[in-house]
Amino acid sequence: MIKVIVNGAKGRMGREAVKMIQHDTNFTLVGECVLKDDLAQVIKSTNADVVVDLTVASAGFENAKIILNAGACPVIGTSGFQLQQVKDLQQLAKSRQLGGLIAPNFSIGAVLMMKFAAQAAKYLPDAEIIEAHSPQKEESPSGTALRTAELISSARNKSTMAYSDKELLNGARGAELHHVKLHSIRLPGIVAQQTVFFGGLSETLKIEHNTLHRESFMLGICLACKEVVKRNTLVYGLEELIN
Amino acid sequence: MIKVIVNGAKGRMGREAVKMIQHDTNFTLVGECVLKDDLAQVIKSTNADVVVDLTVASAGFENAKIILNAGACPVIGTSGFQLQQVKDLQQLAKSRQLGGLIAPNFSIGAVLMMKFAAQAAKYLPDAEIIEAHSPQKEESPSGTALRTAELISSARNKSTMAYSDKELLNGARGAELHHVKLHSIRLPGIVAQQTVFFGGLSETLKIEHNTLHRESFMLGICLACKEVVKRNTLVYGLEELIN
Amino acid sequence: MIKVIVNGAKGRMGREAVKMIQHDTNFTLVGECVLKDDLAQVIKSTNADVVVDLTVASAGFENAKIILNAGACPVIGTSGFQLQQVKDLQQLAKSRQLGGLIAPNFSIGAVLMMKFAAQAAKYLPDAEIIEAHSPQKEESPSGTALRTAELISSARNKSTMAYSDKELLNGARGAELHHVKLHSIRLPGIVAQQTVFFGGLSETLKIEHNTLHRESFMLGICLACKEVVKRNTLVYGLEELIN
Amino acid sequence: MIKVIVNGAKGRMGREAVKMIQHDTNFTLVGECVLKDDLAQVIKSTNADVVVDLTVASAGFENAKIILNAGACPVIGTSGFQLQQVKDLQQLAKSRQLGGLIAPNFSIGAVLMMKFAAQAAKYLPDAEIIEAHSPQKEESPSGTALRTAELISSARNKSTMAYSDKELLNGARGAELHHVKLHSIRLPGIVAQQTVFFGGLSETLKIEHNTLHRESFMLGICLACKEVVKRNTLVYGLEELIN
Repeated sequence: MIKVIVNGAKGRMGREAVKMIQHDTNFTLVGECVLKDDLAQVIKSTNADVVVDLTVASAGFENAKIILNAGACPVIGTSGFQLQQVKDLQQLAKSRQLGGLIAPNFSIGAVLMMKFAAQAAKYLPDAEIIEAHSPQKEESPSGTALRTAELISSARNKSTMAYSDKELLNGARGAELHHVKLHSIRLPGIVAQQTVFFGGLSETLKIEHNTLHRESFMLGICLACKEVVKRNTLVYGLEELIN
Repeated sequence: MIKVIVNGAKGRMGREAVKMIQHDTNFTLVGECVLKDDLAQVIKSTNADVVVDLTVASAGFENAKIILNAGACPVIGTSGFQLQQVKDLQQLAKSRQLGGLIAPNFSIGAVLMMKFAAQAAKYLPDAEIIEAHSPQKEESPSGTALRTAELISSARNKSTMAYSDKELLNGARGAELHHVKLHSIRLPGIVAQQTVFFGGLSETLKIEHNTLHRESFMLGICLACKEVVKRNTLVYGLEELIN
Repeated sequence: MIKVIVNGAKGRMGREAVKMIQHDTNFTLVGECVLKDDLAQVIKSTNADVVVDLTVASAGFENAKIILNAGACPVIGTSGFQLQQVKDLQQLAKSRQLGGLIAPNFSIGAVLMMKFAAQAAKYLPDAEIIEAHSPQKEESPSGTALRTAELISSARNKSTMAYSDKELLNGARGAELHHVKLHSIRLPGIVAQQTVFFGGLSETLKIEHNTLHRESFMLGICLACKEVVKRNTLVYGLEELIN
Repeated sequence: MIKVIVNGAKGRMGREAVKMIQHDTNFTLVGECVLKDDLAQVIKSTNADVVVDLTVASAGFENAKIILNAGACPVIGTSGFQLQQVKDLQQLAKSRQLGGLIAPNFSIGAVLMMKFAAQAAKYLPDAEIIEAHSPQKEESPSGTALRTAELISSARNKSTMAYSDKELLNGARGAELHHVKLHSIRLPGIVAQQTVFFGGLSETLKIEHNTLHRESFMLGICLACKEVVKRNTLVYGLEELIN
């Protein structure tokens, strides 16, 4: 039985996490904290194994330090960490012999899609990314699409294609990052989708992820809570806990 | 039994058409012509009902006149007609009481896709077009994608979406024609695909056409040969023969 | 300004309908009724133009009669009507010169999908249906899939395919209705999807509808309320209001 | 420069392989054999590094022995090997310190799809397989679909779904192998497609492979020829050469 505290328990993600932990027989929920609570104190009094931090990006680094220093494993769901901050936390986790995770994306499906895209790019180097979100999304392409393009680019040898790419209308061939084309669709009726489309000699391979609702992140948080307690290093990215 | 001549019988499309007409029991192939043949003479000597013209764009208009004047129904598979030329041929067909078709695209699947896209746009005005072709295709977007955007734009009331469309990378949101976004993918392993993607309140509708090989045009040529002999007007676009 | 009553206003669909009508400037919500209310009385006192009935199947026929007799246009969202009941209501609507709709499905996307499937089947008679729902759905195939198979079968000439269909494992080739194959997928993460897949000579056409949430029905209810007041006949099926 | 012999060079696959090897600057084609040729003799006289065997299933085992005994690496593209035959060849390859491959499927895209399906099943255990082929395919489901179901079943913990699966029409829910559902579509306009569809909490993941033409196998044969010369073991399945 893993004892879990949710920090940021009253936010939208936090409430979902509380519900998930209460319903999973592998966990006992020993605390629900909000920003102003003394987190170190709650960890010590409850003897918690894991703290899931779903607060705000600016608090993530400090919270991770508090959690490790109090002897629990951090599962941090905020983005915006600097490289040096991750290294400092990895050093601290190592000295304390504690596992931990910092994850900008808790969707297991999205993480698998990125992992498979990188693997496929070794053998099928010609790829394009099509992502679709609701019109409310402010920026294009999505962070996941940009990250996928980086992974494809690192994994593959140079694409074999010599593009002519004459555009009759500007933008037809999409955006480009590291010679990977990205296309962003914005339509109502969509929450978040991404397709990675590979083309080879007389064959194509598509990897397509579709999210209906933020509760899809719960499966990743659940996996993380089970994994960090078995480890003694802190990792960055849910993909590091997936093999 | 419909008597058919194929003009341009030695080209790639012409050879496929000859094969199709020979195998369809509704037709008798009464002539295979090439550019230098006297088409009017062949029509008269064979008493042909229909001439399928698969020569070159520059010859289409003159051939259509020859065919109508010789008393047969033209099925013209070349593009590049001017509006006035179409009107002249319609006048000539009317005076001769002959049916005819000028069709830049003989794919029934593609024509149905465009027709459905226009119908859907009345009720689901928010739409984007994604087309995919082999890297050999020289220009983006495809002619079919541009035509589809025009049809959507004509059919719908104004799109309900106020786009923010902030692009972190240029071109992410694609090209735009009449406020319809178009995205062009170029990958090996694809001949010709197009998806029209509609989004509404908590629902999406996709219409997707996929071509494997130019023989897909034969179904449209076959339909056209059967329809023009029943009619006494010349129409532009295979969609005019489909209800 | 169309004056609308929602009958069954406290059910899940009813609450969504109330919200939609309150937010659409074409409508005034003049009444929210539940089963025990005197519907005829409310219609007369509010001088309502339209009554949206979202109660239970068993009440649909009686409610439609009450609504027509009270001088309003019924929009009935329940299934299970017998053919004779529909005919009786059409007769009553005609005598009263009132428009009306009985619709087992208010999703405009689903109705368009079925309409397009019937149109495509005339030209591409070989088709299979793949529908996907959540594992909670009790029966396979879905009602929409069965209805689509009927529409395809009525619209097409005989399929050109001679199937071998040797199954190494029972059920591999799916269910069959009127020589149309149907395949039902049940997976978490899906609300309701249907793909109608057409195959022709070297080409395929797919029509795919995806529902995220029951609020997708509101667009159809909204369309119905606007259309019935312009008409003086009662029709069965939302597709009758779409052209 | 790798010296390659194609055995079965006059068959449909063999001719494609000859063409591919002639056009790839990593290879020299040193022999084109047919069944009646003395393969051992040709290997010795040309000092070949690799023999690609694309003859018939019944000859595969004997050919592999001849190739290994003559000192070359076999790349065998036939199916129907018994487990003991594979073990015997692995023993022989080991004693000769030669690499080799027996592969029932040379499509890299299909092999990646199966590999990803097995990986995904660990985290998203609920999956169904939909495969589509031309109506000429005699048996359902396809061999690739059956193999994929086995891989999913081996990789995952038990599916979390309690299916009701009440079929209104027999076969609606497809075939079942190791609690994985399989659905086979047969339509013109399709060569070979397979989708592996995973569903999780409010998310789905699809892996979709599409083959246009048998030349898609050439990429796998090319990879195999480059890999076997670096190795000193014989493996079964192209996936063993992919990491």
